[in-house]
Amino acid sequence: MAGNTFGTIFKLTTFGESHGQSIGGIIDGCPSNFLLDLGAIQAELDRRKPGQSSITTQRKETDTVEFLSGILDGCTLGTSIGFSLKNADQRSKDYDKIGEVYRPSHADFTYDKKYGIRDVRGGGRSSARETACRVVAGAIAKQLLAQVGITVKSYVSQVGTVATQNSYIQLDLNQIDSNIVRCPDAKTAAEMETLIKVTKKNGDTVGGQITCVIKGTPIGLGEPVFDRLNADLAKAMFSINAVKGFELGSGFGAITMKGSNHNDSFENKGGSISTISNHSGGIQGGISNGETIYFNVAFKPVATIIKNQSTVDRAGDNVDFKGEGRHDPCVVPRAVPIVDAMAAMVILDHYLRAKTTQL
Amino acid sequence: MAGNTFGTIFKLTTFGESHGQSIGGIIDGCPSNFLLDLGAIQAELDRRKPGQSSITTQRKETDTVEFLSGILDGCTLGTSIGFSLKNADQRSKDYDKIGEVYRPSHADFTYDKKYGIRDVRGGGRSSARETACRVVAGAIAKQLLAQVGITVKSYVSQVGTVATQNSYIQLDLNQIDSNIVRCPDAKTAAEMETLIKVTKKNGDTVGGQITCVIKGTPIGLGEPVFDRLNADLAKAMFSINAVKGFELGSGFGAITMKGSNHNDSFENKGGSISTISNHSGGIQGGISNGETIYFNVAFKPVATIIKNQSTVDRAGDNVDFKGEGRHDPCVVPRAVPIVDAMAAMVILDHYLRAKTTQL
Amino acid sequence: MAGNTFGTIFKLTTFGESHGQSIGGIIDGCPSNFLLDLGAIQAELDRRKPGQSSITTQRKETDTVEFLSGILDGCTLGTSIGFSLKNADQRSKDYDKIGEVYRPSHADFTYDKKYGIRDVRGGGRSSARETACRVVAGAIAKQLLAQVGITVKSYVSQVGTVATQNSYIQLDLNQIDSNIVRCPDAKTAAEMETLIKVTKKNGDTVGGQITCVIKGTPIGLGEPVFDRLNADLAKAMFSINAVKGFELGSGFGAITMKGSNHNDSFENKGGSISTISNHSGGIQGGISNGETIYFNVAFKPVATIIKNQSTVDRAGDNVDFKGEGRHDPCVVPRAVPIVDAMAAMVILDHYLRAKTTQL
Amino acid sequence: MAGNTFGTIFKLTTFGESHGQSIGGIIDGCPSNFLLDLGAIQAELDRRKPGQSSITTQRKETDTVEFLSGILDGCTLGTSIGFSLKNADQRSKDYDKIGEVYRPSHADFTYDKKYGIRDVRGGGRSSARETACRVVAGAIAKQLLAQVGITVKSYVSQVGTVATQNSYIQLDLNQIDSNIVRCPDAKTAAEMETLIKVTKKNGDTVGGQITCVIKGTPIGLGEPVFDRLNADLAKAMFSINAVKGFELGSGFGAITMKGSNHNDSFENKGGSISTISNHSGGIQGGISNGETIYFNVAFKPVATIIKNQSTVDRAGDNVDFKGEGRHDPCVVPRAVPIVDAMAAMVILDHYLRAKTTQL
Repeated sequence: MAGNTFGTIFKLTTFGESHGQSIGGIIDGCPSNFLLDLGAIQAELDRRKPGQSSITTQRKETDTVEFLSGILDGCTLGTSIGFSLKNADQRSKDYDKIGEVYRPSHADFTYDKKYGIRDVRGGGRSSARETACRVVAGAIAKQLLAQVGITVKSYVSQVGTVATQNSYIQLDLNQIDSNIVRCPDAKTAAEMETLIKVTKKNGDTVGGQITCVIKGTPIGLGEPVFDRLNADLAKAMFSINAVKGFELGSGFGAITMKGSNHNDSFENKGGSISTISNHSGGIQGGISNGETIYFNVAFKPVATIIKNQSTVDRAGDNVDFKGEGRHDPCVVPRAVPIVDAMAAMVILDHYLRAKTTQL
Repeated sequence: MAGNTFGTIFKLTTFGESHGQSIGGIIDGCPSNFLLDLGAIQAELDRRKPGQSSITTQRKETDTVEFLSGILDGCTLGTSIGFSLKNADQRSKDYDKIGEVYRPSHADFTYDKKYGIRDVRGGGRSSARETACRVVAGAIAKQLLAQVGITVKSYVSQVGTVATQNSYIQLDLNQIDSNIVRCPDAKTAAEMETLIKVTKKNGDTVGGQITCVIKGTPIGLGEPVFDRLNADLAKAMFSINAVKGFELGSGFGAITMKGSNHNDSFENKGGSISTISNHSGGIQGGISNGETIYFNVAFKPVATIIKNQSTVDRAGDNVDFKGEGRHDPCVVPRAVPIVDAMAAMVILDHYLRAKTTQL
Repeated sequence: MAGNTFGTIFKLTTFGESHGQSIGGIIDGCPSNFLLDLGAIQAELDRRKPGQSSITTQRKETDTVEFLSGILDGCTLGTSIGFSLKNADQRSKDYDKIGEVYRPSHADFTYDKKYGIRDVRGGGRSSARETACRVVAGAIAKQLLAQVGITVKSYVSQVGTVATQNSYIQLDLNQIDSNIVRCPDAKTAAEMETLIKVTKKNGDTVGGQITCVIKGTPIGLGEPVFDRLNADLAKAMFSINAVKGFELGSGFGAITMKGSNHNDSFENKGGSISTISNHSGGIQGGISNGETIYFNVAFKPVATIIKNQSTVDRAGDNVDFKGEGRHDPCVVPRAVPIVDAMAAMVILDHYLRAKTTQL
Repeated sequence: MAGNTFGTIFKLTTFGESHGQSIGGIIDGCPSNFLLDLGAIQAELDRRKPGQSSITTQRKETDTVEFLSGILDGCTLGTSIGFSLKNADQRSKDYDKIGEVYRPSHADFTYDKKYGIRDVRGGGRSSARETACRVVAGAIAKQLLAQVGITVKSYVSQVGTVATQNSYIQLDLNQIDSNIVRCPDAKTAAEMETLIKVTKKNGDTVGGQITCVIKGTPIGLGEPVFDRLNADLAKAMFSINAVKGFELGSGFGAITMKGSNHNDSFENKGGSISTISNHSGGIQGGISNGETIYFNVAFKPVATIIKNQSTVDRAGDNVDFKGEGRHDPCVVPRAVPIVDAMAAMVILDHYLRAKTTQL
């Protein structure tokens, strides 16, 4: 009920405040007897970790995951997998002065009012640091999916007004990590990087968009009528900090389309049935149809800015406030592995759910 | 696991194929000893029912709900509420000929492959008829929410390229049902109606957008980190047939904004703390902050069109296909009460969940 | 949360008061494309129905199940299965006078206090009539289990002080329905029948015990550490009205045993591993080990007796009360199909859950 | 689905093999802003820990709990509470030789077959060591319950053939920890201690029974029809290692009783309604009625004995086997805090669930 668990069969439950002893989680329902590549899990964490490049926060955290159970000699036991990541670079003092101030567009106010108490150090539970645990579980999910031929690849498709003009079909998704923005369109990536740096210099932040592409999904994943594959993907994405929008396939563009243009005609091409267009985004009636699943996720600009803002403090007094400390000028480069992780967990969960459709 | 249940405390489970004996559901977790206005529930169903106006399908279904348990003399007993709606106008023969054809952008193909069997009459379980059950539960949720001062109001904000230029703040939400499009901007509504009629005449369909506005929500609804109020709203909306996009508050517009413009500063105005702008859409860190919650939902054009289309049949042969029967040229006017219903269920569910935050 | 759902993958949700319009339920997660024997489902209901013999209540209810969805030409569609049973012989007037009295050892008092309102006619939701819905779902589960070689057979092993001296191994479980008591030990069954009739004549009621025997369970069903197969069976049995005790395998007898006597040694007999004794009752560490699962369920005497009793009424006044109407002098003969049903649902649910242990 | 979570609102998810790096868990849904007595939590762990007395295993484990999140200065934050306990005294070598043997009445065989892999060191996940995590969560639950006037007290009522002749009403439950057996009947406790020591000397083990007494429960906890308070208690107890039986109130004794003796008459005594007898064990229709809840739990003798036994190894060969290492001759003295913990979690969970019955 309290919302710290995600998934139904492949389930992740997480804990941890940004400045507590550690953060971590428990993965339950991971298929047994599967040999994990533990290095690949850490590599995903490294894609998310702070301080990785000149356009991310300069906070230094190693984000090293330690597995506590459920894995023996790299092989899953079928039992619950406990893991933790130490909170290394806490610098609580940065936050002392802001303990009493409700930072604009942060969760300080809502946590305080909901719980009647709040860990003021670094956002506590509302910190994006919590997403590191998702990356761990998602990295495991990605490995299991790879075993059955499913790949999940996300990339930055827009930063501020700079957007790639190429669709996911035109881009080489193996180039996602070829630059620090994680946009596989080199020219656009360079423009994005420049925009982020200028924004940072101004003490400001900027929004962005991530596109996620899932290939190899078998036909039949997703449970009508409420737990549609698209519905669970939407929830997964909206559970990520700073997300403001989600659209699948034709998305908001579908509003202005006609049925005669939008419909995806089926075609038998040499014995294999597929659709000619894919406005559906690989999901029809909530169930995967075997085509590529693709969707966009909109992120707002990071709330922490190095500018004067007006707000109120805990006592209810109007006060001036200026953000300090280290923060990301744009969240999307580091959010790529988080989108990957959440998408992978949804797909794996539904892959396992689909196994129970037949006796 | 099989996806026919929505909610955690206030839970709806539904059943029914479009052309079976009846459809219906069970509401579990409805607070006890609450006097329902049964007429108001039927009135919500009437807003969704086919044949209600010249711009909807001309199928005639009365959609009369019958309550079977859980209510005594109009008062909730606290026990599970069973209800059903008879399937009146089935006309199964319309569907005989299409039983073997996978209609483009329908769920025929995915259901067949997932289950190995399918009720071909009218889409079976994938029919939007199923949403009538959601309207029943949602209408009950709306009454309970009204009791605690929360209102949920959705309206059509765009049909094809015709969009209202007024924000929800500028519109009079009491005028939603003053026209058959359900757009509370009379001039735009008239244009939308014209567009829908022209589209229908052409045997085509068109997409649209619904905006939902929720007022009176107390601070503190929503459970971090996965069951955020926005995440559950996103899932709720994406569980509705034909939905392709969801955005909260600033939505996709946040991509191009700067933090300095996007942040919602808090202000104490005469003892009451609120935000000056509301780009957050009433939710911060996954928790309601007391401001108005508002979001947009994008709907694709209805897949059934009266035009020739190519597709494949169950045997895998490429065939030509032309839709027949009665259908909606645009789904959004009838989808308004469905968006209302799903939103109301999410808010009520989280209202009840929040009661367990304190001992 | 409100407790009207049972199971995790194969899920039953029920509704209905004893004297409302009807009772019914929704089965979600039933494997698709399975041809049901609908007559066999009704036959199980007939084993539970009132008025079936001289030792049950003489109320007449046909308990005819009507399936509303999820089944086409007898074949499961994979979608949710809605069903209902009309409440035929309501005789609400019998209950008028007791509306204000809290009958001893009934749920009148607790329902009233919990919900602040209560359907006083016949116990409302607390009536054992609700178990008919379980029998429907359980009968479906039994058919699916039979397909994979699993059988569930319950019988009456004790009524008052009359107990069969034979273990389940010595009894012919095909003889369970050869007498109206449902004890497959003819001589003991006759004594039980006499005891029940004498008890009835005295206006009294008597307790009893049902033994359930499950054969053919594959190794590996049950999820440690909380959702052990035995834990879910215990919950299932204790969810049945009037149950006061549950013991698996050696049960309470294990208290006085030594490890050296209790341990079940494994033995390889011609290539097949089994245990020599089976004190474990077929479950070790919460997981089925392939041996026969057997357990006892203790039922209290029915609370409705035709004798004067003291109690209080809704106003809190001490009053005298004498039960009237038709009731069972002993619940166990009619509870046999209910125990069958709950056990079958648990086993099928875990059978489906076990499918997700491997990728 | 994989069974490592217990509860619905107050939820515990656990991880850990007996010989891994650590065991631990996450408590989700703990009410916020509650000041915990951390010392009292450790004190409950000390009641469960090995090596605490001459009649328990001599293994030395400190079982020190470390809280990782969700608590600030002893006060609950409302966020998930992560905790861990290091596995100190692992002595893996004791288990090397038994890795390939399926120990009789242990879970070696079933885990191996279910998962296709197993951590052979000390039972891995099936080890009773896992219950330490339950004690942590249960100790927190007990403190919250105490705040609302509810107490949970368990004691040893039988060891082998030695049983206290006094009911829970006659015993002073403050004396439970006055002896190492945890039977608040000094004379019987002495006999039990002697029996356990003799049994241990013989290299054997013996079964036992724990009685649990819950006072102060308000009327109205428990959710009909499946999640009855008694059903959830039954499941909770059967989720504990070595449990073979559970009975509430009159329990198996109800089988031989008449309704006229068994019924609990209500009585208004000076304005307060209670029952004269309490055969119901404080629960009617699945809902607490305000009377004392009491139940018995039967435990089998520990499976590890220092005697020759025949069994099979992983290759399927019949082999002789003799248990070694340190083990408990009787499980019940150390199981007392585990029964307390599971009972407290059930009651607290239903206490929180009941808060959602009213709007």
